[in-house]
Amino acid sequence: MKRVAKILSFISVIAILTLFISTVVMAAGDPTGASYTSVTGKETLSDVANAASRAQYSANFVWIMITGFMVFFFQCGFAMVETGFCRGKNAAHTITMNLMVFLVGAIGYFLVGFALQFGGSGGAVGLGTGGSVLNGMLSIPGLGGILGYKGFFLQSGGTYDAGIYALFFFQMVFMDTTCTIPTGAVAERVKYSAVVIASFFISMIYYPVFGNWVWGGGWMATLGKNFGLGHGVVDFAGSAVVHSMGGMMAIAAAIVIGPRIGKFKKDGTARAFPGHHIPMAVVGTIILFFCWFSFNAGSTLNAGDFRLAVVATNTMIAGAIGGLVAMFYMWGKYGKPDPSMTCNGALAGLVAITAPCAFVNAIASFFIGAFAGILVCISVAFVENKLKLDDPVGAISVHAVNGVFGVLCVGLFADGSYGDGINGVAGGVKGLFYGDASQLVAQLIAVGVLIVWGFGVSYVFWKLLDKVWGIRVSPEVEIEGCDLEEMGAYGYPDFQIVKSELDFQKADDLYLSKLKVKGTSLNA
Amino acid sequence: MKRVAKILSFISVIAILTLFISTVVMAAGDPTGASYTSVTGKETLSDVANAASRAQYSANFVWIMITGFMVFFFQCGFAMVETGFCRGKNAAHTITMNLMVFLVGAIGYFLVGFALQFGGSGGAVGLGTGGSVLNGMLSIPGLGGILGYKGFFLQSGGTYDAGIYALFFFQMVFMDTTCTIPTGAVAERVKYSAVVIASFFISMIYYPVFGNWVWGGGWMATLGKNFGLGHGVVDFAGSAVVHSMGGMMAIAAAIVIGPRIGKFKKDGTARAFPGHHIPMAVVGTIILFFCWFSFNAGSTLNAGDFRLAVVATNTMIAGAIGGLVAMFYMWGKYGKPDPSMTCNGALAGLVAITAPCAFVNAIASFFIGAFAGILVCISVAFVENKLKLDDPVGAISVHAVNGVFGVLCVGLFADGSYGDGINGVAGGVKGLFYGDASQLVAQLIAVGVLIVWGFGVSYVFWKLLDKVWGIRVSPEVEIEGCDLEEMGAYGYPDFQIVKSELDFQKADDLYLSKLKVKGTSLNA
Amino acid sequence: MKRVAKILSFISVIAILTLFISTVVMAAGDPTGASYTSVTGKETLSDVANAASRAQYSANFVWIMITGFMVFFFQCGFAMVETGFCRGKNAAHTITMNLMVFLVGAIGYFLVGFALQFGGSGGAVGLGTGGSVLNGMLSIPGLGGILGYKGFFLQSGGTYDAGIYALFFFQMVFMDTTCTIPTGAVAERVKYSAVVIASFFISMIYYPVFGNWVWGGGWMATLGKNFGLGHGVVDFAGSAVVHSMGGMMAIAAAIVIGPRIGKFKKDGTARAFPGHHIPMAVVGTIILFFCWFSFNAGSTLNAGDFRLAVVATNTMIAGAIGGLVAMFYMWGKYGKPDPSMTCNGALAGLVAITAPCAFVNAIASFFIGAFAGILVCISVAFVENKLKLDDPVGAISVHAVNGVFGVLCVGLFADGSYGDGINGVAGGVKGLFYGDASQLVAQLIAVGVLIVWGFGVSYVFWKLLDKVWGIRVSPEVEIEGCDLEEMGAYGYPDFQIVKSELDFQKADDLYLSKLKVKGTSLNA
Repeated sequence: MKRVAKILSFISVIAILTLFISTVVMAAGDPTGASYTSVTGKETLSDVANAASRAQYSANFVWIMITGFMVFFFQCGFAMVETGFCRGKNAAHTITMNLMVFLVGAIGYFLVGFALQFGGSGGAVGLGTGGSVLNGMLSIPGLGGILGYKGFFLQSGGTYDAGIYALFFFQMVFMDTTCTIPTGAVAERVKYSAVVIASFFISMIYYPVFGNWVWGGGWMATLGKNFGLGHGVVDFAGSAVVHSMGGMMAIAAAIVIGPRIGKFKKDGTARAFPGHHIPMAVVGTIILFFCWFSFNAGSTLNAGDFRLAVVATNTMIAGAIGGLVAMFYMWGKYGKPDPSMTCNGALAGLVAITAPCAFVNAIASFFIGAFAGILVCISVAFVENKLKLDDPVGAISVHAVNGVFGVLCVGLFADGSYGDGINGVAGGVKGLFYGDASQLVAQLIAVGVLIVWGFGVSYVFWKLLDKVWGIRVSPEVEIEGCDLEEMGAYGYPDFQIVKSELDFQKADDLYLSKLKVKGTSLNA
Repeated sequence: MKRVAKILSFISVIAILTLFISTVVMAAGDPTGASYTSVTGKETLSDVANAASRAQYSANFVWIMITGFMVFFFQCGFAMVETGFCRGKNAAHTITMNLMVFLVGAIGYFLVGFALQFGGSGGAVGLGTGGSVLNGMLSIPGLGGILGYKGFFLQSGGTYDAGIYALFFFQMVFMDTTCTIPTGAVAERVKYSAVVIASFFISMIYYPVFGNWVWGGGWMATLGKNFGLGHGVVDFAGSAVVHSMGGMMAIAAAIVIGPRIGKFKKDGTARAFPGHHIPMAVVGTIILFFCWFSFNAGSTLNAGDFRLAVVATNTMIAGAIGGLVAMFYMWGKYGKPDPSMTCNGALAGLVAITAPCAFVNAIASFFIGAFAGILVCISVAFVENKLKLDDPVGAISVHAVNGVFGVLCVGLFADGSYGDGINGVAGGVKGLFYGDASQLVAQLIAVGVLIVWGFGVSYVFWKLLDKVWGIRVSPEVEIEGCDLEEMGAYGYPDFQIVKSELDFQKADDLYLSKLKVKGTSLNA
Repeated sequence: MKRVAKILSFISVIAILTLFISTVVMAAGDPTGASYTSVTGKETLSDVANAASRAQYSANFVWIMITGFMVFFFQCGFAMVETGFCRGKNAAHTITMNLMVFLVGAIGYFLVGFALQFGGSGGAVGLGTGGSVLNGMLSIPGLGGILGYKGFFLQSGGTYDAGIYALFFFQMVFMDTTCTIPTGAVAERVKYSAVVIASFFISMIYYPVFGNWVWGGGWMATLGKNFGLGHGVVDFAGSAVVHSMGGMMAIAAAIVIGPRIGKFKKDGTARAFPGHHIPMAVVGTIILFFCWFSFNAGSTLNAGDFRLAVVATNTMIAGAIGGLVAMFYMWGKYGKPDPSMTCNGALAGLVAITAPCAFVNAIASFFIGAFAGILVCISVAFVENKLKLDDPVGAISVHAVNGVFGVLCVGLFADGSYGDGINGVAGGVKGLFYGDASQLVAQLIAVGVLIVWGFGVSYVFWKLLDKVWGIRVSPEVEIEGCDLEEMGAYGYPDFQIVKSELDFQKADDLYLSKLKVKGTSLNA
């Protein structure tokens, strides 16, 4: 108490002193900044033109970098959602995977991926919009439509360039979202090392190739110019390139790795494995929502394209109604407003609006989001009960199913008010409801490629990896929890963790023995 | 280990390869971007004037959208503060409510609220400043001073417009703060469905009407122009419109719903219900502080109004000294630097500076914040011990009491250095201490309206809702915790939760039976 | 169910209504904002020149303020990392300290620190770059090279100025990072009141003095201009000023306070005290990474300096490879990809790139980060096993060791492509590998000053504080946990906390009695 009194006296002295000083008239500089100018009066028209151009570039750089920073923050949202929806015994394993995929992804994309995606094909064609002021800076010649081949290590071909570094930054954080999606579908049983390898694969090859085709001026982007299919494949911010590609790999991974022990009973019905930390998962969802505004609106790559405000608002409306509809759907069907499906409904709405966000109005966004909210509920039940796939966080239904839905929405709802010049085609992007069926054809081609390249290649990848390296922890580790054995640290060493699921797992040993658990002998 | 060796070899190869390549001279593009320009040399003066104007608009859009994104993130802060300060048995209930109020709020404001607030009255008059470059875009004719009536669904009256979508986005996230405040005061016993309904009410009617009067060019905004009361009601970023309105509804809700079971002993003295997760609550407070900079400074709606730097700094100073003073106050009085009151002190300082932040200097902010820090401590004790209201997170003291205090501070401390032209009145805004008593009168009128419209209407609303629908869970659910019964999911199914408060609750059954717990029979 | 049906009907009505309305042709305003302009056609060249200049300033203000907001958010990351890596019994203590250091720091820097750092010496010289557009606004005359003396309370000398408030905001959040670093090294045994006092000391004197010398135009900044040592001491975003200074104080504090009870066994070997909440620590790391982009790139203080994109990308690469290398190092050496060292590796890479981020290319960043990742692993083991210092979160190895390494990297890897005019010296900054050994000399001088002023002064400070006030809680409080005794609140009152470490602590009472635990009698 004596000490506290001392502190308080100290503070009081400061306060009185301050009060005294503040009675002095505040000597002002320019408190509103109204007089700030760097004009000398000797500028020529050319000087001023340059100044105006620099100011526009400055706003563009601020827009691209700040939204890019926020897209990086996706990482935090995914980490929390996936970890919150897992069981406590795997918390350190799941959260560290989510950090690691970024570390690996950044390096893989730096070494190889970026060059494959953008180092050719005539340079970046504006991330689906054609409107980027960055465009002019990028003129890396390439193979033309199939793959880029310059810019490895941000090194060759004049890529030590402020604009190209900005593009790299922005594209890397997008790519990383694809990296982090499959981890949710294989959580609680995947080997950490397998995810390290998968993340190198995604960032170096899997994502950049598809990304080149759609965003790097590749053959899907030019379907409009070359074959008259609308504006070619149009995916404003990545329902296809980012979310569907992540979701396709999630499906393949879930098939190859098999369900968690105890997930399905002997009679084949599924058990609920409730998420161990609902507040963490909900906070993660809010963070994802927060970052999504930058994800979508930042994709104008241009602060002078004021459509960005429409993009952000459409994103808000679709995500909100998606969550709301899923909540009411679950409430009506099962009697409770399920927290996890409310989260997934919002995320589904966000994934679905990601491709069409720039080409539709708010009312269309409302309906797209509402439909996505129902779709995700139906899909989660279908994936679990019919396909018998075990996807702990719903990554397949959120990212693959609604990603594909979003890609198609461009071909349905695009209202023609935006997109002039995109992919080299004049006029706004129009969907079927506004009179252009050919745009829908282009979008359907994208879906086909998603299945062949996205699902096909990733299925082969996981099968191969399972053979060569092993992708699943041993049943002993899985039952005990992956934290100590895989990571060397418990997630919550000071808390009493309840592992009630052990009981039914032992009871189900018959089913367990039938499970195709690969790589067990490798994990002894 | 063999596998790890493999990994290391793989990495080594890459590293050596990289090292080799990097010895090659780095072929540079333009690594500082110094040569970037889009000037062709053929620009006319008119072209350049347009380019400069577009660059200014671009900076404005970036400012409005990015700060708007961050105001959305308030949602995350509130969710964590409220959940952290509740008990573990209600964690899923509290956190999901905080997500849901955004989902509902966005849709309610989209369908109805925005049109009522801004779809008339001559358009938005710059959110209290008159300085917004967006102003020129908005010319939606309306009823003049009472309510707007255009822009439902962002549809009618030419509202499919980039500028109007930007304004909608920014205003929606402000509105949502009001939605999320009352949930803190009714936490741990409110029916989830009642909060769904209340959020529709707030976003559709309660907030937009008051918002129109102050920020939509309504009758309170024009008190200065029409009746010579200073600049009319001035509320830069929403001490009144956002925080007091939320706080008023929190008071009404807390009165109608009654205290949590066991909160007050038979002798009427209060029991402490410690928050179950202090780190979550503190992190939430830091997040709120973070977003508040955007909340206040973003309210210039104009990147060319450099007063935004003064606003951000004032916000920092007031919040910091508020938290510090509350900490020392509690430390001196009770012997410990109470974590929750340190948080609430910071929040109180932030709420209090929200209205005056643009009109005062840093020293005035220091005193406003310091006073708020003491005020919140006294108020929390008063609300609990004298009014016998149970407000689990201190929403009433933080938002209602300090909101009203902040509104008055404009009328006291505004120093005349800013606000020329605001609400159509020339000259800077001046408070009593700088010679304009009429401004204080305008602010007092705002307080009166807050009580009548804010408290009055929300009291009627909650009373009615209680009668028609029921707003409180059954005592059994409340004692057991709202998570399973209301949400269908535990917040922390894998952790051992201690429910020691059950003991004294049973001991207090006599008091319990006297509690007016509404809607019990409906919850069986 | 009846009620749910009601809700669903209500929603359906709204949906149908909306559908109906949306069939009406959407009356558009300007949905792309293509026509937005404020040009009247009567502008003169001078008007347009002013408009272009204002637009540039606007972009600068947006850049400085938004990145400044995000640097504030560092606070959240540090709070979570430090708390997650501590034990559950000290969670409320650790997290509240991390909030408090900001509250104290903001006020201390406002009252005294900012004036000492920037209120003289010819004003701010661009935070290491010389390129800030803010520069022109700042012309506070001072003592020239040793200390500033104007701007106390943002009051004297015309400091009530939008530009100066902006600079204050940005610099305050940087300073605060230094404040929060030592708390990690003394966590779980330091008296809360001692940290209050230390934070006042850091924000008022310790940091601003060194900051003036390097960033305030002080004698270290002018070593180039006056003595031909390269560009003088160059520290782009604060490896020295922010991280090393914090790290030096962490070393001194850890020495003076001594290890946690039970940390070292009788034979002198260390015990692992695992962090109680790995997800919290990992999320905190992701948040720090997120903010670091703004920390480094924002330090251009100028949106028109497009080098900011190179800065951000270098930051990403160095942090990612740092984390990855540390992960593989631990995996190879101890058999597991340690979550906490993966986090610390990423942070080490980020600290190391902070000084050189603007002066090097991405490949150099790759190697700087990779080396930092190994360095931090070796250093953590060395500090614990050889120096016998107990640093619960690795603050010494991350911030002091890698901070110093980063300072030197400028003198080694700077490639001459950037920095023309910085600290009044023409030409780009070049390190030893690019032919300028004198730059390395300047950087070595900085390291010397870090040791003398940084470590020396803080050692004296902690020794003195220990004598006069006491810096350590009593052994009883430490064993029980600091939460209740120091803060008056448990971190997790509703969770079952395991305190298994109590056992070995009792067994080690012999060692305990030898521990120099200061101030025990003061804590009775």
